Amino acid sequence: MMYSFLHLSGYKAMTLDQLKSYHSEHADSLCPGHPEIEIEGIELTTGPLGQGVANAVGLAIATKNLQATYNRPGLEVVSNHTWCTVGDACLQEGVGLEAISLAGHWKLNNLTIIYDNNQITCDGSVDLVNSEDISAKMRACGFHVLEVEDGCYDVEGIVSVLKEARESREKPTFINIKTTIGLGSAVAGKAAAHGAPFGVEEVKRMKTANGFDPEQHFVINDEVRRFFAELPKRGERFVEEWNGVVDEYHRQYPELGAEFEARVRGETTRDWHDLIPDSFSTSATASRVSSGLVLNPIAKEINSLIVGTADLSPSVNMAWDGKVDFQHPDLRTTCGINGSYAGRYIHYGVREHAMCAIANGLAAFNRGTFLPVTSTFFIFYLYAAPAVRMGALQRLPVIHVATHDSIGAGEDGPTHQPVELAALFRSMPNLLYIRPGDSEEVAGAYAVALGYREGPSIVSLSRHKIPQLHGGDRGTSLTSRDGVAKGAYVLQESEGGAPADVTLIGVGAELSFALELAKALRDSKGIRARVVSFPCWRLFELQPISYRREVLGRHGPGGIPAVVIEPFAPNGWERYADAGICLRQFGHSLPGQYIYGHFGFEVHSMAEKVIGYLEGIRNEIYIKGEFVDL
Amino acid sequence: MMYSFLHLSGYKAMTLDQLKSYHSEHADSLCPGHPEIEIEGIELTTGPLGQGVANAVGLAIATKNLQATYNRPGLEVVSNHTWCTVGDACLQEGVGLEAISLAGHWKLNNLTIIYDNNQITCDGSVDLVNSEDISAKMRACGFHVLEVEDGCYDVEGIVSVLKEARESREKPTFINIKTTIGLGSAVAGKAAAHGAPFGVEEVKRMKTANGFDPEQHFVINDEVRRFFAELPKRGERFVEEWNGVVDEYHRQYPELGAEFEARVRGETTRDWHDLIPDSFSTSATASRVSSGLVLNPIAKEINSLIVGTADLSPSVNMAWDGKVDFQHPDLRTTCGINGSYAGRYIHYGVREHAMCAIANGLAAFNRGTFLPVTSTFFIFYLYAAPAVRMGALQRLPVIHVATHDSIGAGEDGPTHQPVELAALFRSMPNLLYIRPGDSEEVAGAYAVALGYREGPSIVSLSRHKIPQLHGGDRGTSLTSRDGVAKGAYVLQESEGGAPADVTLIGVGAELSFALELAKALRDSKGIRARVVSFPCWRLFELQPISYRREVLGRHGPGGIPAVVIEPFAPNGWERYADAGICLRQFGHSLPGQYIYGHFGFEVHSMAEKVIGYLEGIRNEIYIKGEFVDL
Repeated sequence: MMYSFLHLSGYKAMTLDQLKSYHSEHADSLCPGHPEIEIEGIELTTGPLGQGVANAVGLAIATKNLQATYNRPGLEVVSNHTWCTVGDACLQEGVGLEAISLAGHWKLNNLTIIYDNNQITCDGSVDLVNSEDISAKMRACGFHVLEVEDGCYDVEGIVSVLKEARESREKPTFINIKTTIGLGSAVAGKAAAHGAPFGVEEVKRMKTANGFDPEQHFVINDEVRRFFAELPKRGERFVEEWNGVVDEYHRQYPELGAEFEARVRGETTRDWHDLIPDSFSTSATASRVSSGLVLNPIAKEINSLIVGTADLSPSVNMAWDGKVDFQHPDLRTTCGINGSYAGRYIHYGVREHAMCAIANGLAAFNRGTFLPVTSTFFIFYLYAAPAVRMGALQRLPVIHVATHDSIGAGEDGPTHQPVELAALFRSMPNLLYIRPGDSEEVAGAYAVALGYREGPSIVSLSRHKIPQLHGGDRGTSLTSRDGVAKGAYVLQESEGGAPADVTLIGVGAELSFALELAKALRDSKGIRARVVSFPCWRLFELQPISYRREVLGRHGPGGIPAVVIEPFAPNGWERYADAGICLRQFGHSLPGQYIYGHFGFEVHSMAEKVIGYLEGIRNEIYIKGEFVDL
Repeated sequence: MMYSFLHLSGYKAMTLDQLKSYHSEHADSLCPGHPEIEIEGIELTTGPLGQGVANAVGLAIATKNLQATYNRPGLEVVSNHTWCTVGDACLQEGVGLEAISLAGHWKLNNLTIIYDNNQITCDGSVDLVNSEDISAKMRACGFHVLEVEDGCYDVEGIVSVLKEARESREKPTFINIKTTIGLGSAVAGKAAAHGAPFGVEEVKRMKTANGFDPEQHFVINDEVRRFFAELPKRGERFVEEWNGVVDEYHRQYPELGAEFEARVRGETTRDWHDLIPDSFSTSATASRVSSGLVLNPIAKEINSLIVGTADLSPSVNMAWDGKVDFQHPDLRTTCGINGSYAGRYIHYGVREHAMCAIANGLAAFNRGTFLPVTSTFFIFYLYAAPAVRMGALQRLPVIHVATHDSIGAGEDGPTHQPVELAALFRSMPNLLYIRPGDSEEVAGAYAVALGYREGPSIVSLSRHKIPQLHGGDRGTSLTSRDGVAKGAYVLQESEGGAPADVTLIGVGAELSFALELAKALRDSKGIRARVVSFPCWRLFELQPISYRREVLGRHGPGGIPAVVIEPFAPNGWERYADAGICLRQFGHSLPGQYIYGHFGFEVHSMAEKVIGYLEGIRNEIYIKGEFVDL
């Protein structure tokens, strides 16, 4: 239906031949099985169920926020309505239900969800899995509900409710349209009409039943052609009118007009680089705190950023001084918050999945106008992972701020300690998973993430205080924001430039462990260790091989073994290291100051392991190229 | 509250000292930050929000199914009620909402959800993120709704609704109890009372306000002690009564009684090994079809198995001949299904996350009584991943049947093609991710999964037909079910026993590619390749190092390079291979027969890559131990 409408409404690339390429062998078809954002006229890639509902909520927020920010009396520079068509399944998926609750709460009257209620899914009739009163449920969620009894033939009825939906003043609208799947076929109203092709005979039967010539294919009759022929002209008229409004807007509000234009072009209203602090306190700082120090001034100043959290404001440190909540302007909460649609701080509730899918909608709305930021504990990005993935697939710039990323988060226990999650995000194409090791590296992580246009970034942060890594001279940072941009870099060469015996790779919250270990190895056994900080695999992969080999200590024939220290599953570190002090089990419920010891990450345990490993190499117990779990 | 009740109600290990160990440095504390299943009296590990709601639905299903299967008039051998306490957040999370819809649909009148409605979450008052009428929403979802206005002091009111809930005949019950968080403290009714410790002074104030001595700690007054002192005796009386019922049941229904006892002991009613076919057709078969051939006869015969799907019955092939749907016995669906609570086939709707969390509840119900099986496309296990993880953390045996696991699934496009998901599940502790390469390996995969008691398994299957791997003699399978149990094994040594030049590692749907490639390398360049089938990393890791080195061709000084072929992200293969023909980007919307070629997985492209790689090694372009993406 989408592809047909693009064809009919004048998208030139969407030719009749393209329509025929659906499910074909052409890799460059504009009609893939599920609509893809790369195709002109497609606003978002959908397919995985429920995502689209939340994406639509994101689009509607975008409009509300721009309207509240830029519209002035008589000058509506932003005025669009978001229409979202859903099936039964979109209303079953949790992510859809989360987004629906939020749309009702925010009174997004510029959003209409059109429910193609055919009561059929793959397995059979929907009453196999649903007995709920969906209209009552939507009303309870704050929607204006309209119903169309005969969605197959009552075209006037449909047009009428669509118009009514657009006029809704107070609430988002849910249109429950009863339809029959496979209308006119032998399997009308049955699950067989859902996923499988109808076959030649059934297509003939349906065409005949609906007044078409059963022998002809891909025919658009003149009445339809004429109706749609008007569309491009109408569109051009609207654009002209809008240009007029924008011109007048520029005259009356020149500064705001310039800002609006910049936003429309996808530019920020000012450069953000100078807002990142040049240096940081040298005292131990949780990297979630460093994160606030870096990102909050930017979020405050640059109104492309729209920052949200899944009910973890006190933990994630994303609320800047003077932030205004995105809420319905009439809302007065018990806790004393007055909202505004111009607000750019979003309370998503405990709805991580909807948060990230809504963020995708915001990012896709006139790409570049918004840079959405989400935040929660790292482990809860697993709840949101399907949406994070859709952002990566669509190359949508969204920054995900993931705190409590290590077993060091402590007493919340193994349910909250991510040991295997980094493996997912490090494998996910287009996404930058960055685990900075102190404030300086946090600055580097955000510098990369803010500039990255090819997909989302996850900035992975500690709950607990971590040392700021400085050399002997307290003023000189060992860590380097520019190093972060390269994915990995040498933090400390072995002393006096002597050839090293081993490379230690440190990461994120445990980066300082590598430095401590290097010292312990030297002091106890005279072992010369160099230390590499390795915050991001994907950025490292973009570096020339010579750089990569140099950093990893593999340069030349005198390559030395590398040992990675990270209390995560080691999977994938085998590419960069020869051995690992990692964690191949779930965590444990212990306060942060005890848990590292519990799992053997105390410096003396680690030193013993490395010493044993280097001996094992000398004694040829290990085979070159075979990764060793220490 | 849970730990206190365990202490008061007579769980001997839960001493007063244990109660004091909450958030302490003791690794063996029975009072971790979130309750853990390993502790006597804790039924499931919870913590990540929303999981518990779905777990509770699983427990309630378990009871219903056992009741319908075993109870006889006057002989209720199963009769428990499931109580689930939730907060605001559990009702915001999608997984909770999915499970609630299902509980209402199934009319689980043996389930009561008690909502501690304090209108506070971390960020502030719940009206920041919720405006919905929760009681109306629950009614629309098919719940019987009861309300308690004063949940702080109206104890009689609470007891009365709890009794009413237990008597519900038609519906699950939702009890909306309005409470005040931090009652008696200065932050009563505020977010500050949610997550942070109160501090000494506030605790004193609360104790005073509630009639306790503010200077004394961990005091249980005599009235409370006396009340709870009765509990163990009451419990013993119930056990005695129940034993009497069971004895009478054995007399009246000896066969059923024996079966029931076996189920209670966590045993299957018969051995399943002989139900697995000895051999399979030699024609190309989709491994999702092989999966049905292996698992369906077992599911049919052995009633511990309770099999469900997230609306993909026609795709996943899990419905056995004569299966009965688990549904309310009065249900008559439009598509002609009559349900029964004794049914063991569950239509979950398009609710993957609830499906897997409900399966955890089923598995945890008197561990071993049920072996839950879930099914959907592999990519949609990302929606369910938080529940799969909770199953792994709790070592709950659940079998997840994941079809369409490869880019070969084709035209559904990159949204449906999992390229990075295996990296997550291969890193997840306790979980077996098994990717079998033909019917014989599918048999091996299920033989392992059915016997595995230490956690869930994912059996990862192809949508499309794949060759059955036989030697020259059509009757002899190259693949081996016993080999699967070892994680990896040599599928084919290089011909004539001559030393090989390279090891090719093949996996799952693309296992046959490795064999074809070996032949092409020999035919075109005389390169001798041996082929390894590698369905499961975790099983392989359990083998002795000598076996592992032998399989990988690393044995002795003449170790040869290994190349893995898998159109997934290579992350982690670096442990087993020196180079990979993998996929480091998202897939593409193309029918299966075209997509492999599109990404360079045609045999001639792969042969060129391997030839180039071996040349590169000879010319020392590559460094030993450095993984090469081909």
